[in-house]
Amino acid sequence: MGITLPIICGLLALIFAFILSTGIAKEDSGNDRMKEISGYIHEGAMAFLMREYKYLAGFIVVVAIVIFAAIDYKTAICFVFGAVFSILAGYFGMNVATKANVRTAQAARDGQSKALKIAFSGGAVMGMSVVGLGVIGLTIFYWVFGNNPEFITGFGLGASSIALFARVGGGIYTKAADVGADLVGKVEAGIPEDDPRNPAVIADNVGDNVGDVAGMGADLFESYVGSIISALTLGYFLFSGDQPKIMFPLVLASIGILASIIGTIFARNSKNASPQKALNAGTYIGGILVIIGSFILSNQTFGDYKAFGAILAGLVVGILIGKVTEIYTADQYKSVKRIAKQSETGPATTIITGFAVGMYSTMIPIILICIGILFSFYIMGGASNVSMGLYGISLAAVGMLSTTGLVVAVDAYGPIADNAGGIAEMSELPHSVREVTDKLDSVGNTTAAIGKGFAIGSAALTALALFASYAQATELKSIDLLTPVTLVGVLIGAMLPFLFGALTMESVGKAANEMIEEVRRQFKTIPGIMEGKGKPDYKKCVDISTAAALKEMILPGILAIIVPLAIGMLLGVEALGGLIGGAVASGVLVAILMANAGGAWDNAKKYIEGGAHGGKGSDAHKAAVVGDTVGDPFKDTSGPAMNILIKLMTIVSLVFAPVILQYGGILLNLLK
Amino acid sequence: MGITLPIICGLLALIFAFILSTGIAKEDSGNDRMKEISGYIHEGAMAFLMREYKYLAGFIVVVAIVIFAAIDYKTAICFVFGAVFSILAGYFGMNVATKANVRTAQAARDGQSKALKIAFSGGAVMGMSVVGLGVIGLTIFYWVFGNNPEFITGFGLGASSIALFARVGGGIYTKAADVGADLVGKVEAGIPEDDPRNPAVIADNVGDNVGDVAGMGADLFESYVGSIISALTLGYFLFSGDQPKIMFPLVLASIGILASIIGTIFARNSKNASPQKALNAGTYIGGILVIIGSFILSNQTFGDYKAFGAILAGLVVGILIGKVTEIYTADQYKSVKRIAKQSETGPATTIITGFAVGMYSTMIPIILICIGILFSFYIMGGASNVSMGLYGISLAAVGMLSTTGLVVAVDAYGPIADNAGGIAEMSELPHSVREVTDKLDSVGNTTAAIGKGFAIGSAALTALALFASYAQATELKSIDLLTPVTLVGVLIGAMLPFLFGALTMESVGKAANEMIEEVRRQFKTIPGIMEGKGKPDYKKCVDISTAAALKEMILPGILAIIVPLAIGMLLGVEALGGLIGGAVASGVLVAILMANAGGAWDNAKKYIEGGAHGGKGSDAHKAAVVGDTVGDPFKDTSGPAMNILIKLMTIVSLVFAPVILQYGGILLNLLK
Repeated sequence: MGITLPIICGLLALIFAFILSTGIAKEDSGNDRMKEISGYIHEGAMAFLMREYKYLAGFIVVVAIVIFAAIDYKTAICFVFGAVFSILAGYFGMNVATKANVRTAQAARDGQSKALKIAFSGGAVMGMSVVGLGVIGLTIFYWVFGNNPEFITGFGLGASSIALFARVGGGIYTKAADVGADLVGKVEAGIPEDDPRNPAVIADNVGDNVGDVAGMGADLFESYVGSIISALTLGYFLFSGDQPKIMFPLVLASIGILASIIGTIFARNSKNASPQKALNAGTYIGGILVIIGSFILSNQTFGDYKAFGAILAGLVVGILIGKVTEIYTADQYKSVKRIAKQSETGPATTIITGFAVGMYSTMIPIILICIGILFSFYIMGGASNVSMGLYGISLAAVGMLSTTGLVVAVDAYGPIADNAGGIAEMSELPHSVREVTDKLDSVGNTTAAIGKGFAIGSAALTALALFASYAQATELKSIDLLTPVTLVGVLIGAMLPFLFGALTMESVGKAANEMIEEVRRQFKTIPGIMEGKGKPDYKKCVDISTAAALKEMILPGILAIIVPLAIGMLLGVEALGGLIGGAVASGVLVAILMANAGGAWDNAKKYIEGGAHGGKGSDAHKAAVVGDTVGDPFKDTSGPAMNILIKLMTIVSLVFAPVILQYGGILLNLLK
Repeated sequence: MGITLPIICGLLALIFAFILSTGIAKEDSGNDRMKEISGYIHEGAMAFLMREYKYLAGFIVVVAIVIFAAIDYKTAICFVFGAVFSILAGYFGMNVATKANVRTAQAARDGQSKALKIAFSGGAVMGMSVVGLGVIGLTIFYWVFGNNPEFITGFGLGASSIALFARVGGGIYTKAADVGADLVGKVEAGIPEDDPRNPAVIADNVGDNVGDVAGMGADLFESYVGSIISALTLGYFLFSGDQPKIMFPLVLASIGILASIIGTIFARNSKNASPQKALNAGTYIGGILVIIGSFILSNQTFGDYKAFGAILAGLVVGILIGKVTEIYTADQYKSVKRIAKQSETGPATTIITGFAVGMYSTMIPIILICIGILFSFYIMGGASNVSMGLYGISLAAVGMLSTTGLVVAVDAYGPIADNAGGIAEMSELPHSVREVTDKLDSVGNTTAAIGKGFAIGSAALTALALFASYAQATELKSIDLLTPVTLVGVLIGAMLPFLFGALTMESVGKAANEMIEEVRRQFKTIPGIMEGKGKPDYKKCVDISTAAALKEMILPGILAIIVPLAIGMLLGVEALGGLIGGAVASGVLVAILMANAGGAWDNAKKYIEGGAHGGKGSDAHKAAVVGDTVGDPFKDTSGPAMNILIKLMTIVSLVFAPVILQYGGILLNLLK
């Protein structure tokens, strides 16, 4: 059977996505005002993508030539397709998401059930595109180049490069628009959120799509293909020529796709009154199906249940990290309540407490990841066969990511519901509509936080799996912390997430400042704008966010690619191994800290807005707003950028391993 | 000559300290009011020390028994003396500092020159006590136990344990008092800083001594002895029985002591009108003398200048890290100016920018440390002889710390000048006196920031040197990142500074809340307190800070000792090696981030208070105050606690290495 099953399942995912999107397109897109507003959002989002793609086209060509010259043409081709497939997934997902939002708003007029269905279907298009394109791409190039996974590392690099620009650019875009809209609109002019008089309001809604749909989708596309690539390359060396065993990760991914489709159908048609429960039900069904499928598959392929154990470990760790994230960021638990309480003594104590919560929240996810590593390594017999143990770690990553289709669907549902609320507000739909969308949106906030935890956990495991592939590719027998160059690699690697965090936060600041100036200018110069008669220039604000995001993503992007190459060329393969190790360790920590502190501040503010500690307008609320604003770049720009950084640096090292192995270590040789 | 020179130089340092303190005691301690207030501070500081010592006595006895049972009686004896010597250094230093403060205030009536002399002499007592006791203790136990450095690791553990309690307890003490005094006094009651009507004002001034004199002194005492221990143990294995070579680090330290004494005398008697320049001149002279001395010594002992190269690298890196710290935290540079500017758009942008500055500021110090590691490793011939290379790293650490006596003197001068200002204010001395003390204090702020950078850099290098000793003690040939337990060790180790940061920040919050309640209660219940007629109950506030600090330091303290032991026992020596590596990498980063962000916020506030962006009372100033308050636990509690954490965990591992080597790895064996 070989490649047939993955191709069929990949196609099934794409067909399912197509059916869903056709269904969405047929839905009523509301009155003229709604069409107009959603048109702006759709246009703005597409304009951003198009301008991004123009930049990326140049980037892809240059890097492809470099790969062609330094490695070979096969890897270069894979690179191009990895990039293009990631772009396609993002394009499909965003195109539909920006259509689903207005239809969700319109459906919300008739109550929650249909609105949920549309919003979730919109998210599922993104999810299915990610897994479908991922599996098809990997399978084809595996097969085309002679059942050899050596070149598909290029596919992973392509996916990673796009993820970098989508996540970092998207993160800068969305927060520049958000902060700009809030600071001038809400704080200075005193108009409510999502008010159509605010010139930055469209950019803000576009940002939700750019950052949370396309950015997040590209992030998980990267993790998804990265984990499979790692398992394929490790398996290729382990099972010399035994195709069913080598193909195991792709078959597992195929099972995951089928499980995700069934889970999606379930969630979509759930009659449950609670949107959260409907989504959970779908997720659980998907997870259980993967468990059953991998149980059978493991025995069929390997004759035992060891692989199943590793896969299960990955799945369970992924779910638990999501749950822990919820505990630290949802307002029914004590951390958020404590931040809210500390808001009574002003913004300083809000910040200190939230930061402490973020730091504290790193503990359990790290322990879970460690348990997952040890369990999947030793259950595969790593004690006597290290390669087999490392293969176990990569299977855990594939297992964790097997339901990516569902995870992305649930995750991308959030910004669609959020957008629907914005459109309802701007189109002045009845209050009851906004109530429905608010309910959908609040569920989206929780799923977003959980999704972030999952994205971090899967990035960590994927990076570690790719790290194992890197060691194999460079024929390193050890990466020894007692060797000073390794130690230097670890130190520099651990520092990079801090540098990356600083750069991305500064970028948000700069872009937000431009936005603030522009909104102020429009409020001043456009006659009748505050009375709702003068029309704000939405396009100008969209342009500012777009231009700023594209400009600001260049430096961090180059750094993430150049630094590992530079360290490898100067200090050699072992130092580069140390760099990756250090970057993964500190990147995961900084990512968790930033994501959870940001999420907790956000929900502490919402908790106060719900009436606690004096409610909206109280001093505690003002303090909580400061926390939320600080948390914005934490959780939506810098934090998620860490996922990309660690994966991209790892895969850059993996792809260029042969070159570094041959020519690297120039400075090291001089020192010796 | 053997042990004679170090003992003589150690005694010289102590005699010099004694002369200085006698000189200070003879100075005029001002009018009755000044005597009364300084009496409160002195009493409060001593009361804290005494209660801390009571706790510590129990701790020392228990740990000594554990060491005796698990290792041997010699290490246990060394442990007790390491602890007691650290306590003695802290006691001497604080005792004199709390006498020098009031005499500095009194001398400031006659102008700056004499006031500077007294304040700096006070700091020098702490500095000389640290190096004198350190060198004497190490030399004696090296000699007593048969010219064998094996047991003096216990001395280092003793020093580390006390440092933990002094730094963490002191950090909690000082910030609880500071935040409590500020939030109720300045913000709620609207009375100025250092106003005698504020019941927390004495606790605040005590805190400066407890945290910045005793805590910082214990921190550097630990680094100082730790670096020498590492070089001695590595040298002992390298130079089998060749005493002059083994003793090299102690002789180098002796040269450092002589250089520090000469530098101190120079700075003390400098006629320079700028206090900064006077202190700098002393520091430079000390540094140059060490360079000359180690140049000669290196050739005499080893017949070449390789050791000199390693020492020079350490010295230069230490100085440069201090300089970089200054660039990120002093208001004449752009980072602080940018934070001040961003304060115009409110506290959220202040926090974001400051945090980004802190993250950004990690880059150059890490690169400098890396260059120091590579240089000192390879210049000693590490390429062909790894042990020799690692010895080079430990020599760099000893080199960096050779002028510790001077560094501590300059550092401890700051809180004395700060206290002098407080006493001048509370005693209502003429405005001109306050002007002098303010000038002295502002120099102290810069030296404090530089001192923090130096403390972090030296902690990193010391921990790495001890790490090399650990590898030798456990006979580890490699600590391989490709082994999953090592990776797990690295991940958990990297997480610990985050956990430690969270715990210590929460402790400050809790303690500050108690203080706030108490100050509010006194303002309400003591009649005439606001009119200056009713006498505030200073002692009660001192008690609260003392009790809270002692209570809150227990959990972090236990963690720092238990976690490495637990990891070693469960996962074995290699995982523990990974843990140390991960903890050092992430601990240094978090420490730099927190120290520099905190320092930058502090100086941004002062910059605005100097008249920029609307000056005192403006909205920008309010935002900057929020930044400063957030920065307080960053720079004075959690940040410095990282230095201790990484050194303590390393030396715990080193001391218990034989036990872990024999019995450790229980879980690992089960997994296998």
